[in-house]
Amino acid sequence: MFAVTATQTDPDNPLKGLTLGERPDPTVPDGWTTVTVKATALNHHDLWTLKGVGIRQDRLPIVLGCDASGLDENGNEVIVHSVIGTPVNGDETLDPRRSLLSEVHDGTFAEKVAVPKGNLVPKPAAISFEEAACLPTAWLTAYRMLFDKAGVQPGSTVLVQGAGGGVSTALIALGRAGGFRVWATSRSEEKRARALELGADQVFESGARLPERVDVVMESVGAATWDHSLSSLRPGGRIVTCGATSGMVAPTQLAQVFFLQRSIVGSTMGTRDQLARLAVFLEQTGVRPIIDRVLPLTRADEGFAAMHDGGIFGKIVFTV
Amino acid sequence: MFAVTATQTDPDNPLKGLTLGERPDPTVPDGWTTVTVKATALNHHDLWTLKGVGIRQDRLPIVLGCDASGLDENGNEVIVHSVIGTPVNGDETLDPRRSLLSEVHDGTFAEKVAVPKGNLVPKPAAISFEEAACLPTAWLTAYRMLFDKAGVQPGSTVLVQGAGGGVSTALIALGRAGGFRVWATSRSEEKRARALELGADQVFESGARLPERVDVVMESVGAATWDHSLSSLRPGGRIVTCGATSGMVAPTQLAQVFFLQRSIVGSTMGTRDQLARLAVFLEQTGVRPIIDRVLPLTRADEGFAAMHDGGIFGKIVFTV
Amino acid sequence: MFAVTATQTDPDNPLKGLTLGERPDPTVPDGWTTVTVKATALNHHDLWTLKGVGIRQDRLPIVLGCDASGLDENGNEVIVHSVIGTPVNGDETLDPRRSLLSEVHDGTFAEKVAVPKGNLVPKPAAISFEEAACLPTAWLTAYRMLFDKAGVQPGSTVLVQGAGGGVSTALIALGRAGGFRVWATSRSEEKRARALELGADQVFESGARLPERVDVVMESVGAATWDHSLSSLRPGGRIVTCGATSGMVAPTQLAQVFFLQRSIVGSTMGTRDQLARLAVFLEQTGVRPIIDRVLPLTRADEGFAAMHDGGIFGKIVFTV
Amino acid sequence: MFAVTATQTDPDNPLKGLTLGERPDPTVPDGWTTVTVKATALNHHDLWTLKGVGIRQDRLPIVLGCDASGLDENGNEVIVHSVIGTPVNGDETLDPRRSLLSEVHDGTFAEKVAVPKGNLVPKPAAISFEEAACLPTAWLTAYRMLFDKAGVQPGSTVLVQGAGGGVSTALIALGRAGGFRVWATSRSEEKRARALELGADQVFESGARLPERVDVVMESVGAATWDHSLSSLRPGGRIVTCGATSGMVAPTQLAQVFFLQRSIVGSTMGTRDQLARLAVFLEQTGVRPIIDRVLPLTRADEGFAAMHDGGIFGKIVFTV
Ligand SMILES: [Zn+2]
Ligand SMILES: [Zn+2]
Ligand SMILES: [Zn+2]
Ligand SMILES: [Zn+2]
Repeated sequence: MFAVTATQTDPDNPLKGLTLGERPDPTVPDGWTTVTVKATALNHHDLWTLKGVGIRQDRLPIVLGCDASGLDENGNEVIVHSVIGTPVNGDETLDPRRSLLSEVHDGTFAEKVAVPKGNLVPKPAAISFEEAACLPTAWLTAYRMLFDKAGVQPGSTVLVQGAGGGVSTALIALGRAGGFRVWATSRSEEKRARALELGADQVFESGARLPERVDVVMESVGAATWDHSLSSLRPGGRIVTCGATSGMVAPTQLAQVFFLQRSIVGSTMGTRDQLARLAVFLEQTGVRPIIDRVLPLTRADEGFAAMHDGGIFGKIVFTV
Repeated sequence: MFAVTATQTDPDNPLKGLTLGERPDPTVPDGWTTVTVKATALNHHDLWTLKGVGIRQDRLPIVLGCDASGLDENGNEVIVHSVIGTPVNGDETLDPRRSLLSEVHDGTFAEKVAVPKGNLVPKPAAISFEEAACLPTAWLTAYRMLFDKAGVQPGSTVLVQGAGGGVSTALIALGRAGGFRVWATSRSEEKRARALELGADQVFESGARLPERVDVVMESVGAATWDHSLSSLRPGGRIVTCGATSGMVAPTQLAQVFFLQRSIVGSTMGTRDQLARLAVFLEQTGVRPIIDRVLPLTRADEGFAAMHDGGIFGKIVFTV
Repeated sequence: MFAVTATQTDPDNPLKGLTLGERPDPTVPDGWTTVTVKATALNHHDLWTLKGVGIRQDRLPIVLGCDASGLDENGNEVIVHSVIGTPVNGDETLDPRRSLLSEVHDGTFAEKVAVPKGNLVPKPAAISFEEAACLPTAWLTAYRMLFDKAGVQPGSTVLVQGAGGGVSTALIALGRAGGFRVWATSRSEEKRARALELGADQVFESGARLPERVDVVMESVGAATWDHSLSSLRPGGRIVTCGATSGMVAPTQLAQVFFLQRSIVGSTMGTRDQLARLAVFLEQTGVRPIIDRVLPLTRADEGFAAMHDGGIFGKIVFTV
Repeated sequence: MFAVTATQTDPDNPLKGLTLGERPDPTVPDGWTTVTVKATALNHHDLWTLKGVGIRQDRLPIVLGCDASGLDENGNEVIVHSVIGTPVNGDETLDPRRSLLSEVHDGTFAEKVAVPKGNLVPKPAAISFEEAACLPTAWLTAYRMLFDKAGVQPGSTVLVQGAGGGVSTALIALGRAGGFRVWATSRSEEKRARALELGADQVFESGARLPERVDVVMESVGAATWDHSLSSLRPGGRIVTCGATSGMVAPTQLAQVFFLQRSIVGSTMGTRDQLARLAVFLEQTGVRPIIDRVLPLTRADEGFAAMHDGGIFGKIVFTV
């Protein structure tokens, strides 16, 4: 089958190890099944893999790609849940040894991908394969942060720090569609403008004083925004954090935490069931991921080059 | 001031006690404040009061009306929370001695209404006074059932039993806007058609076998649908109940409850904070109550007559 | 190996099908393991199986017994979790096709029992094998009802309806050890006296008016006590139900549910992790199951006869 | 009446401002009531007030003391809840303007103290006035951390950092009585020995590698133990923090939070209802606060001197 593979890694020239061509069909372990891929989407994660981050050398060559939609063995339209793990307290994302597709097992940039049977989720007919392929990583992460970990009811005010990234974009779109008052911050005027287009009610420069304290802050920036996030919360409010692009060590003012009884909650990815609900949520509300361009998988190298050069807005989708 | 008052009650001829005319301005106890009413909405509750249900004779004459939007003493646009009670575990709806406006204290069908200071909620500018006046009873009840008591995440499947009433209508509209898959039942083909217009994904005759088990059932019908509600739930699923129009005593198959670990949760009205979030939810999602007609309060008798005759669809709103 | 087996069923003479003798060692499917049984305990469930209730004829002969403690293949002291199921939302007790040991697979009344690897829980050294063998059914059921489903904090008041049965006994002992105020009802003066010995603070005749409303009611009686249970709850209070010995259909006063926002929550058995926590709870608090008598497994027929005759108080344990 | 008052503050010589003598009886605002104090307990908070920390100069002279038990105006035995605040979302401890008795209003070191009517809690007969007087601050704080904020079931493993202080002592005693596995750390061998006496299962030097990861960590130390606390948690585990004696700014490894989905939850004091449940919990389990010595209030200066000199173990109680 045709596939897009990482054959080597290079921190300085990630595209060097990007290889398009024939690969053997996937082997299918007990309890796994095969999906015929119809669409898949590019993530920064794929570029990181080509740089050698989050991948062991002895896994190479490995098929890239975390996201996919396609057909199961009976021809049903499905979305592929990318988390491979053993549930801990009923949640596969709590498995400290979990992986995403393309980290340990071959990924989704191929005509076929093997996945555990339990990792398939029905694709609503109203969602196209291209749209569905955008959901399993950033949008699933945002869904869990907003509708599970935040612990607030619709109509509450949510602050999204750092309006640029994939998760932040999904948070703004999902938050607005779900009936939250969404505020967003960014250092970039352009990104603030896009946040408003995506549905944010108000946007602010990073660190700006807000009109009032918020119920919950969505954090993926880390060190640079941490203090602002904590002090922006109402008494009893909560930070939900899924990443730290600006720095992993954040000095935390503990009195801000205990005296006003705030909380900080870590979140990563989401469960298979949450992916299923996310797809229905899109079907019901009409909100859709923004797609920058659609390319055939055979031209995946163009997509990688565009992401590497920057300046894209929305997802790069490959069709098979 | 001008007001619409219940001066007597009659189970057979409720309109006989309906009196329009001058009334003294409200007296304002310590901790209370006055709202200048801009819009108010008619509820079946007002007809029941005129029939003598839920009202003590020694309260008469009493100004009718549970719902209102208007201006507070500083000219801010507000919505009036109708529940008068002392919080129990932080929730005024848990006070067994709570009342609604027009049950113990004069109601909202007047130029001015006195309410506890804490019962005012900001009206978002995007919501009109007429729309805002529709929220404090049926829509608030639906908001709490769906976004608090149901305990499910958006994208879940919700069954609304009895698609006709005010709460059911609000549940369908709110559920769809909030990203739930909404199924509804009714004995009436006309009401099923309206449920689809309001946003239901599928409708069914009462008691019909469903395509699959649902995550949560919204119950306001009671005895007639109870068995169907319970057996329609997935393992671990939940009934939320706020009323029982078809009968107050429902035989419950306990094995259906414990063996599949289902639950049944009672809900009534909502808190002041939930009313505030409901208003923002409408602002953000664009969903709005359906208004059958708008009349000046001086023609409230026409509205009462229309509700008494039946056949209205949506709220009857009075402007002041 | 030696085992105690149901070879036939008879509703009138259950002991007729009770067979003691040699049986082949268990076969061990993929992902399963073998436990060398040290102690096991008799449940009414075993008598019901011999009566033909809850068992398919084509399963016979089948080794009886739900409960066991023993040694795993590495010699570690373990308790056996009896629920065989596939987790639904992370909870194996939500699987509608779940079974207990001795329902589909051979049970624990044997020198060896095969179980899924995940079904083993460490036995604290401070708990004897005999005590540990009493935990996996009634005590686990009580643990989940009290510490998971009830949703109340220690120091709350818990009413246990029907103080006689295995679950009720465990509820009283666990509730008192866990710092709850425990009230119990029974029609029998003798059982009320025992409830006091087990740690109940006050006991009442069935249906008696209580000194005040309670936070939560533990229900295993069903139809006979249902009305009393519901009306005994404070506003916002909860019934947790795990059975219905007096009748499966309980007329429910819905106004009692919705107007005071009470809830009814079904519960059955518990998870593997809850069994592990239950064992630690016993270790830490010093509370222990009451054991009526200990017999060698080779004299299991005496234990069955005693349970069949009634009048036992506490568990009948078999050692191997 | 006789009272113990702060008449001036001095950071270096706190006892200088300690004044014993006659004071006017308390004035009782609307909605408040008077308690005849029977016992009261000394807290470091009282010494801090005399040092000028947490007190405004224009409040002086002010009666000291946060804790009290006594008789209400009808002669009922009561415990006094010390938090004076307006509930936010039903929780008075969320009011950012809340105070404790002796911060804004006269405290409990007096023959009579005025408190809001809602701040009285029944004292169980089995708890002495002296014991009851120890509950409203450190023990209430510990109760809320353990039984509310921790979100874990009994039998879970709890790590208490810094075994010396009042809250940590209460956490160990309450945790053990509530059926948790309690581990504690301290730099001091003597304090580790006392932790074992109080019921800890294992004790460790600060920062020591633990035998396994824990479900929840109780934090009142702050900067010095923060890293150890976070890395000691299992996936999905939680820190509950109520203070930071070693430093208020704690560098937080965010990857430790989000990748393993841990959480950090601030907690302070507890609600009036939690104080009531705490008292019942003591009644039911038999656990009691440790009292170092009991003195008549007229010799309160000896108690202050002993606390100032250090080396006490348990509470100093004053009787009136
Ligand atoms: Zn990765
Ligand atoms: Zn009413
Ligand atoms: Zn069975
Ligand atoms: Zn203070």
